[in-house]
Amino acid sequence: MKYDLLIKNGTIVTAAESYKADLAVKDGKIVAISNEINDEAEKIVDAKGKLVLPGAIDVHTHMSMPFGGTVSSDSYYSGTMGAACGGVTTIFDYPVQRKGQSIMELINEKKAMLEEEACVDYASHCCITNLNNGEILDEMSKAVEEGITSFKAFLVYKKEGMMVDDATLVRLMERARELGAMINIHAENPDLIDMRTERYLAQGKTSAWYHYMSRPEFVEAEADKRAIHWAKHLNTPLYIVHMADKEGLEAAIQAKRDGADVFIETCPQYLEYTCEVYKRDNGRNFVCSPPMKGQESQDALWVAIKNGLIDTVATDHCPFQTYEKDWGKDDFSKIPNGCDGVEVLYPYMLDAANRGKIPFERAVELCATNVAKIFGCDDKGSLSIGKDADIVIYDKNKDFTVTIDKLHTNCDHTIWEGKQLHGYPVQTYLRGSLVYDNGDFVGKAGMGKFVKRSPRI
Amino acid sequence: MKYDLLIKNGTIVTAAESYKADLAVKDGKIVAISNEINDEAEKIVDAKGKLVLPGAIDVHTHMSMPFGGTVSSDSYYSGTMGAACGGVTTIFDYPVQRKGQSIMELINEKKAMLEEEACVDYASHCCITNLNNGEILDEMSKAVEEGITSFKAFLVYKKEGMMVDDATLVRLMERARELGAMINIHAENPDLIDMRTERYLAQGKTSAWYHYMSRPEFVEAEADKRAIHWAKHLNTPLYIVHMADKEGLEAAIQAKRDGADVFIETCPQYLEYTCEVYKRDNGRNFVCSPPMKGQESQDALWVAIKNGLIDTVATDHCPFQTYEKDWGKDDFSKIPNGCDGVEVLYPYMLDAANRGKIPFERAVELCATNVAKIFGCDDKGSLSIGKDADIVIYDKNKDFTVTIDKLHTNCDHTIWEGKQLHGYPVQTYLRGSLVYDNGDFVGKAGMGKFVKRSPRI
Amino acid sequence: MKYDLLIKNGTIVTAAESYKADLAVKDGKIVAISNEINDEAEKIVDAKGKLVLPGAIDVHTHMSMPFGGTVSSDSYYSGTMGAACGGVTTIFDYPVQRKGQSIMELINEKKAMLEEEACVDYASHCCITNLNNGEILDEMSKAVEEGITSFKAFLVYKKEGMMVDDATLVRLMERARELGAMINIHAENPDLIDMRTERYLAQGKTSAWYHYMSRPEFVEAEADKRAIHWAKHLNTPLYIVHMADKEGLEAAIQAKRDGADVFIETCPQYLEYTCEVYKRDNGRNFVCSPPMKGQESQDALWVAIKNGLIDTVATDHCPFQTYEKDWGKDDFSKIPNGCDGVEVLYPYMLDAANRGKIPFERAVELCATNVAKIFGCDDKGSLSIGKDADIVIYDKNKDFTVTIDKLHTNCDHTIWEGKQLHGYPVQTYLRGSLVYDNGDFVGKAGMGKFVKRSPRI
Amino acid sequence: MKYDLLIKNGTIVTAAESYKADLAVKDGKIVAISNEINDEAEKIVDAKGKLVLPGAIDVHTHMSMPFGGTVSSDSYYSGTMGAACGGVTTIFDYPVQRKGQSIMELINEKKAMLEEEACVDYASHCCITNLNNGEILDEMSKAVEEGITSFKAFLVYKKEGMMVDDATLVRLMERARELGAMINIHAENPDLIDMRTERYLAQGKTSAWYHYMSRPEFVEAEADKRAIHWAKHLNTPLYIVHMADKEGLEAAIQAKRDGADVFIETCPQYLEYTCEVYKRDNGRNFVCSPPMKGQESQDALWVAIKNGLIDTVATDHCPFQTYEKDWGKDDFSKIPNGCDGVEVLYPYMLDAANRGKIPFERAVELCATNVAKIFGCDDKGSLSIGKDADIVIYDKNKDFTVTIDKLHTNCDHTIWEGKQLHGYPVQTYLRGSLVYDNGDFVGKAGMGKFVKRSPRI
Repeated sequence: MKYDLLIKNGTIVTAAESYKADLAVKDGKIVAISNEINDEAEKIVDAKGKLVLPGAIDVHTHMSMPFGGTVSSDSYYSGTMGAACGGVTTIFDYPVQRKGQSIMELINEKKAMLEEEACVDYASHCCITNLNNGEILDEMSKAVEEGITSFKAFLVYKKEGMMVDDATLVRLMERARELGAMINIHAENPDLIDMRTERYLAQGKTSAWYHYMSRPEFVEAEADKRAIHWAKHLNTPLYIVHMADKEGLEAAIQAKRDGADVFIETCPQYLEYTCEVYKRDNGRNFVCSPPMKGQESQDALWVAIKNGLIDTVATDHCPFQTYEKDWGKDDFSKIPNGCDGVEVLYPYMLDAANRGKIPFERAVELCATNVAKIFGCDDKGSLSIGKDADIVIYDKNKDFTVTIDKLHTNCDHTIWEGKQLHGYPVQTYLRGSLVYDNGDFVGKAGMGKFVKRSPRI
Repeated sequence: MKYDLLIKNGTIVTAAESYKADLAVKDGKIVAISNEINDEAEKIVDAKGKLVLPGAIDVHTHMSMPFGGTVSSDSYYSGTMGAACGGVTTIFDYPVQRKGQSIMELINEKKAMLEEEACVDYASHCCITNLNNGEILDEMSKAVEEGITSFKAFLVYKKEGMMVDDATLVRLMERARELGAMINIHAENPDLIDMRTERYLAQGKTSAWYHYMSRPEFVEAEADKRAIHWAKHLNTPLYIVHMADKEGLEAAIQAKRDGADVFIETCPQYLEYTCEVYKRDNGRNFVCSPPMKGQESQDALWVAIKNGLIDTVATDHCPFQTYEKDWGKDDFSKIPNGCDGVEVLYPYMLDAANRGKIPFERAVELCATNVAKIFGCDDKGSLSIGKDADIVIYDKNKDFTVTIDKLHTNCDHTIWEGKQLHGYPVQTYLRGSLVYDNGDFVGKAGMGKFVKRSPRI
Repeated sequence: MKYDLLIKNGTIVTAAESYKADLAVKDGKIVAISNEINDEAEKIVDAKGKLVLPGAIDVHTHMSMPFGGTVSSDSYYSGTMGAACGGVTTIFDYPVQRKGQSIMELINEKKAMLEEEACVDYASHCCITNLNNGEILDEMSKAVEEGITSFKAFLVYKKEGMMVDDATLVRLMERARELGAMINIHAENPDLIDMRTERYLAQGKTSAWYHYMSRPEFVEAEADKRAIHWAKHLNTPLYIVHMADKEGLEAAIQAKRDGADVFIETCPQYLEYTCEVYKRDNGRNFVCSPPMKGQESQDALWVAIKNGLIDTVATDHCPFQTYEKDWGKDDFSKIPNGCDGVEVLYPYMLDAANRGKIPFERAVELCATNVAKIFGCDDKGSLSIGKDADIVIYDKNKDFTVTIDKLHTNCDHTIWEGKQLHGYPVQTYLRGSLVYDNGDFVGKAGMGKFVKRSPRI
Repeated sequence: MKYDLLIKNGTIVTAAESYKADLAVKDGKIVAISNEINDEAEKIVDAKGKLVLPGAIDVHTHMSMPFGGTVSSDSYYSGTMGAACGGVTTIFDYPVQRKGQSIMELINEKKAMLEEEACVDYASHCCITNLNNGEILDEMSKAVEEGITSFKAFLVYKKEGMMVDDATLVRLMERARELGAMINIHAENPDLIDMRTERYLAQGKTSAWYHYMSRPEFVEAEADKRAIHWAKHLNTPLYIVHMADKEGLEAAIQAKRDGADVFIETCPQYLEYTCEVYKRDNGRNFVCSPPMKGQESQDALWVAIKNGLIDTVATDHCPFQTYEKDWGKDDFSKIPNGCDGVEVLYPYMLDAANRGKIPFERAVELCATNVAKIFGCDDKGSLSIGKDADIVIYDKNKDFTVTIDKLHTNCDHTIWEGKQLHGYPVQTYLRGSLVYDNGDFVGKAGMGKFVKRSPRI
C-alpha cells in the first residue's frame, strides 16, 4: 500500500490518552496507526517531538452574518482561512431564519456561499425565530434527514424579533427529542436587558461598561435556569451556548447530575477576560453578548472545565471592524455585538494544557471529540481508524504572541492582541490535505465540504 | 373603669405562647389582660375551657370579582358574613386594574362597595396589570400614603391581558422597595399553560383532570423561581400567593435562607387536597389556579408549615355556582377558576392544631399575626394591649362537619363538604362587637372598616 | 388588689411584638398587663421611655468549673451577680460527670453550692462522659422527673476522657427522645485537634494563633455534621452549643428544613470577634473552644440570626484570670479555655437591636423566649400573665462602654473591654425583687432558686 | 514484520469511541491498528462481528484473604483463573498489614504467592492498619518507588483492630498527596454497627436481614461524608471503594464538583441487588460489607454511572463456601463477609451496554481505562499503540446464564446464579497470549506479572 500521507514519530493525543505512534492517511481517511510504519507515502512528515492532534471543530461561529445593521467582518472565506490557520478543520455556522423563511431555503442559501468560499469543512445549526404556524416543526424532520440535526433558539433579542417565547422553545425541544436533534439556546433575559439599557442610557451612562451592567450575571442566569427547567422536567435535550455565568453554570451541572440531557458550551473569552475589560478605553471592542462576567464566574468555569462538567469550548466568532464598533462610542447599545476567536480557540486551550492547567486530552475532548459526539459528526473529532484525516501538528515549544498582523481572519483588531501563547500549531491537514503550514495558509477556497450529521439515538 | 366586654377564664393564645387570663375590652380595643379582672363590664363572657384567639385575617379573597365571564358568587356582604362566622375579622380584597385605570380610582370604586356591605374589616391589595406609561409607579406613593401598601402582579393570564412581563415586575418590585410596599405575585408560566391547554383540547382531553395537567407542578415552579430570582438579586421584597408546589417552595425557602425578603402564602385547599380531586365526578368544582398538586408537594407544604418556613395561610376565596362551573363540563378551560374557603380557613388550621399536627400558636401566627406584620396592619393580628379587640372564642371540644347548609357564604356547594373538624369557633368579636354567635351571624353589613396600613420599614 | 410591684408607662417587648402598657406583679408573678393600672402597689416604677423586657436566660455557663488544671474564676456567687447586673435572671450550669458518678449525685453536689450562692435562678444541663455500663441511661428518667431535662455530650476532649464515641452519643439521643429530653453537644473533632496541636508545637508554633489553626472551621464542621447526621436519620432531638462555623451552621439549617429536631446556639463572641483576635498580643485571653472563626463564618451567623434560623444566643461563660491564661504564653495548649460573657450577653444583643441590626423582639426571642421553650422553663422567658416576674428595664439611650471595672463578675480582664454599647439595662427584677439597680448589684446570694423543667412533648 | 497475533475485522472499543479495524500484536504489545493489516502473523483471529476490548482490571479483590476466622475460598490461582475467564487481565489484591508489619514485608510475602499462582497480571493496594509510630509514613515513599502507589484504610472494623482513627486517616492522606499516591477507604461507621449488632442479637434478631439493618444506608453515609470532608478541606486524594449508598454518593459527587480529588468505585452487586436479598432463605450468601442497600441507592448509582460521575466498577471479590456462610445461620455477625464476582464483572457491565443501558465505551472506561489512569497502570487499560496486549473478544450475540458449574472460581455457590447475560467474552489474551477460549481456561499459573505503577503527578 502506498499512503498519501504518513506522519511519523509524533505523539498522538485523543480525548482518552496520548501515545507515540506513526499515522498513515489514504484518500482523506486515517487508515493506520502503528508503532512504526515504513511503507511508502506520497508525503512523509516527521513529527518527532510534536503532538499530533485531531483538528478542532469550532461549533459556534458567525461569518457573513448580518447583525446590528452591518455584517460580521469575516466572510466564509476569510473566516475559514483563519480557522485553518488556528487548527480548526470544521466550523459550524448559525444561519438565522427570516420571518416566514423555511429551513431548507435558509440552509441552501448559505450552503451555496459556503461551497464556494469555505476553506475548511462546515456544518450548520439553524436558528429558528418563528414556527411559521407550526410548519417549521414539520420541516425539522426533513432537515434532520439532510444532516442538519441542531437548531438554535434565542431567548433574547425580543425587540429585534428573534426571541422565541417559552411555548415555542418547549415545542422545539419536544420536537428535537422526537427527531434525535438538539436545541441550542442563547440564554439571557430580554426584558431586563431592555429595561436596564433604557435606564442607563436615560441616565447618560453610555460607555461599554454599561453593556455589561445592562446584562450582568443574574440576567443571564435567569434564562439559563428557565431553559434548564424545561429541559429537565420535559426530558428533552438542551445545549446552552456561550455559558458565561456561575449561577447558570451550576444549574446546568445540577441538571446533568439529575440525569438531564443538558450540555454546556463556553468560550475562550469568558475563560480569559472578565467584565473589567469594559472599563478599558477600547472596551467596546470586547462587547459581545453575553458579556464577560466577574472573576467568580470565570473561576467557576475553569473548575467545571477541569472537572469535565463543561462539554465544549467554542468561539462565538463574530468580529466587527473598529469603525463599526465605534458606532457605539456614545451609546453602548449601538455597538455591534461580537468578537473574533476562531483562529485563537485551539491554540488558547492547548496553551492551557501546555502550562499544566488541564491535560492535553481534555483540550482535545472540549474542542473536538465532544463536539463531534454531541452533534453527530461521525467522521470527525478523533484520530482513529476510519476518521477524516483532519490533523493538527502542534509544537509545544513554539511561542507565539497574538497580534492582528499574524492572524488571517479579516478584522482590523483582535481582542487577543498581545496574548502570549506557549506552544502553537505548525501544520493543519484537512482530510489529508495541508491547509496551514507554519504561519501560512496554503489551502484554498472551496476545499471545505458540508458535514452531514447523524441524529442522536 | 367599666369595661365594654370582659372575657374571663379563657386561655389566651398568641403567636408566641398560651396562658390563662382574663381579657378586657374598652372602645373596641384590648385594654387589660390579667390573671383576674373583677371590674364591671357591659358584657361578661365566661370562656372557661375555651381558647381566646385573635381574629384571623384572610389576606387573600376575591369577592364581587369579575372573572371568567361572570362574577364570583360572594358579594362583599355574603363573603364577609361567612368570614365573620369562620373567625375571620379582616379580609384583604384583590381589586384588578382595568386598562388605563388609576390605582385610586380602582380602590375608591371598591371602597364604596365595601363601606356599605362589609361585615368585617377590610384592606386591599391592588392588582396592577399595566403601568400606564409609568404613571402607576408614581401613583404608588400616593396609594401607600392612603394605606394601600401592597400590589399584586400576575405572571400568568397573558392572553387575558392581565400578565406583566419581567421588566414590569421588576419595576414594580424596585418601586415597592423604595416605598416600603410589597409586591404579591401569582406565579405560573402562561406560555406553557396556553400551549398545553390547546394541545389537550385538540386531543379531546377536556375533563377537569386536564386543568391540572395543563399546569402541573413544574409550570408553577418556573414562575416561582423566576420571580424569586429577581427578588433575590435585586434585593426587593416579594410575597408569593397561593404557593402550591414543592419545587417553588424550596426555591423560596432557599432565598429566605440567603437573606432575601421573600414571603410565602399557601392555602387550605393545597394542604387538604391533591390533584386527585380532579378525577372526581365533580372535579370541576375544585378547579382553581394554581391547581392542587401531587402528594409530594402537599407533604412539603406541611413540613414547611411545621418548620415556620411558610409565612401565611389564606384562602384565595373565589367561589362560583355549580351552574357556572358546569360551563366547563366539556372543556376544562371554560370552568371559572376558584373555590370557597373564607369560612373554613381558621377552623381548618385550628383543627390541625387541635389534632396535634401543629401548635395552636403556629395556627395563630399563620392566620393572623404574620399577616398583620407583613402587611402593616398595626392594630390587628394579636391579643395584646392596644390592639383591636378582634377576638375569636374557640371550643376545642366542639365537633363540626362542614356542609353547604351550615356555611354563610353564598355558594350552592363547597369544596369542604363533609370535612370533619374537631374544634370550632363559638363566638367572633369585631373590635369588641359580637358578630358571630354559635352558628349565627349576628353582625350587620357596613360594620367593617377600612384598615389603613403602614409601610414596611 | 394591692400589687407588689407596678411598672408603669413602659414598652413591653415580647418575642412576637412590642406595645405600651403597665405591668403588675404579685407574689413574684406577672398578674396584670393593661393600658393603665392605677391600683395600689408596694413599689411603683415609672418606665416611661424605657423598654420592659423579660429577663434573659443564659443557657450556657461554666461557673466554679474545674478545667485545665484550675477552676473557672467565677464562683456561682460572683457569676450570678454578674448575670443579674447584665439582665440575666436564670443561668444554666454544666456540671460534668466524673467517671462512675451518677447523675443525681452530680446534680445534688452542685445544687448544694447553688442554693447557697446563686443570685439568680438556675438550672443544670448534665454533662455525661460515660454511661456507667448503661446505668446512666436508666437514671436519665429519674433526672427528668427531677426537672433535669437536658444532657450534654462532648464530641471532643478525647485525651481528657470526656469525649463520648458515636455509639454513646446515639444511645443518649435515642434515650432523650424517649424521655422528652434534649442532648446538647460540643462539636469539634478531637483526633484532628490533637494531631494538629502536636504538629504545631513540634514546629515551634506556640502562639494563640495556633490555638485557632489547630481547630479551624472544618474541624468544628466535621463534628457538627456527624451529630446532625445521626439526629436526622434517627429522628432524635439535638441541640448544638456554641456554633461558630459556617459549614456546620448550614448543615444544621438544612436539617431543620428537612424536619429534623435540630437546634442551634451561638455566642456573642462569635458574633463580635473573628480569629484575627488570636494575633493580638493578648490573644490568649480570647482562647476558648471552639475558637472564633473567619469573617465568612461570622457573616453566616448574623444572616441566620436575622432569618430566625439560629435558636438561641448564650455565652459559654467560663473566664480565667490573666495569670492562668499566661500559663500558655509559650504553648497555646496550656491556655485554659474560656472567656467571660454572662454580664454582656443581653446588653450586646439589645445593642444590636438598638442599632437596627435585628428587631428587639428577636433579641428577646434568642436570649429568653426560645431558651425557655426549648428547655422547658415553663415559668420563664416571656412577659405574660402567670410567668415569673423576671424583668429587665432597659434604657435605649444609655450609653455604656465595657471595662473590667464596671463588670461584677470575678475576673481581672474581659474580652469585651472597650466595647461600646448603645442602650443598657437599668434595673433587673428576679421574681419581682430588684437585684440590679443602675450599676449596682442589690440582690443577695441564695436568692436564686432551682428551675424545675418540663420534658418536651 | 511478522506479528505474533493479528486480530482482524473486529470493532475496537475504547473509552472514547468504537471503530472497525485490524489490530496487531508483537512481543506482548499492541503495535498496529489499521483499516487492513495483511502482514503475516503467528496467529490470526477473525473477529468479524465481534467487539475487541481492552482486558478489564478488577481493582478490588480479596483472594487468599484471611478473614472472619477462615480464608476467602479463592486462592490466587483459582481466583485469577476465574478472572481470565471473565475477561479480567489484571487484578488488584488488598493485603492487610498485621500489627507491626512493614509494608515491604507484607507486599513481598504476597508477591511470592502471586508469582507462583497468578494467571493474570496483578498489583497490590496495601491496607494500613497502624502507622508503627510513624514508620509506615516514611516507608510509603519506598513503596511508591517499588510501584505500590495506593494504600487502603479501614474506617470500620474497630473491634477487629483494623480501623484507623481520623488522625491516622488524615496523616495517610496528607502523605499520599506528597508522594503522588492514593488512599482508598472502606467507609462505614464502626460504633453504630457494633451498637446495632449487639442490640439486634440481644433482641433475638439474628437473620441475615439484620446484617443489613445493623449497617443501613446512613451508617455507610456517615463515614463516606467524614472522609470526603477531610479530603476536600485538606486537598488530598481519596478513593472510596464499594460505594453503595445514595447519600454518600451524592456527597462524593458534590466534592468532585467542588474540585476535590475524590474518586468513586461501586460494585456489580450494588447495581444488581438490593437489601431485599437478605430476606431470601440463602440471604447469608449475599452478606458482604457494606451490604446491598435500598432501591433508591441502586437507582442513584445507575444515574451516576450513566452521567460519568462514578469512576470505576470493581468486585470486592471475596467468596466463602456455603458451610462457612452457614456459621452465621443463627447469628448474622458470624457470617464471613464477602461474595464472588471477579468472573462476572466485565460480562455484567458489558451486558448493561449490550442492552442499551450505557454505551460500551462507558463499560470499558469503568472497568479498564479509568482504573489504569487513577492507579498508574501505564501499560494497561486501553487498546492503543504501545499498551500491553490485554484483549478481550466479545460476542454480543452469545447468551450466557450464570451457574456455579460454568464459573472457574473456587466456590460452591455464586450470588450470580441464574443471571442471564446477553453477550459474553469468547477469548481473553494476556499480553498477547490466549488465556481463555470460549468457556475454557487455557492459560497457566505463574503467567501473571507484577504491575509496577506510576505515582500520580
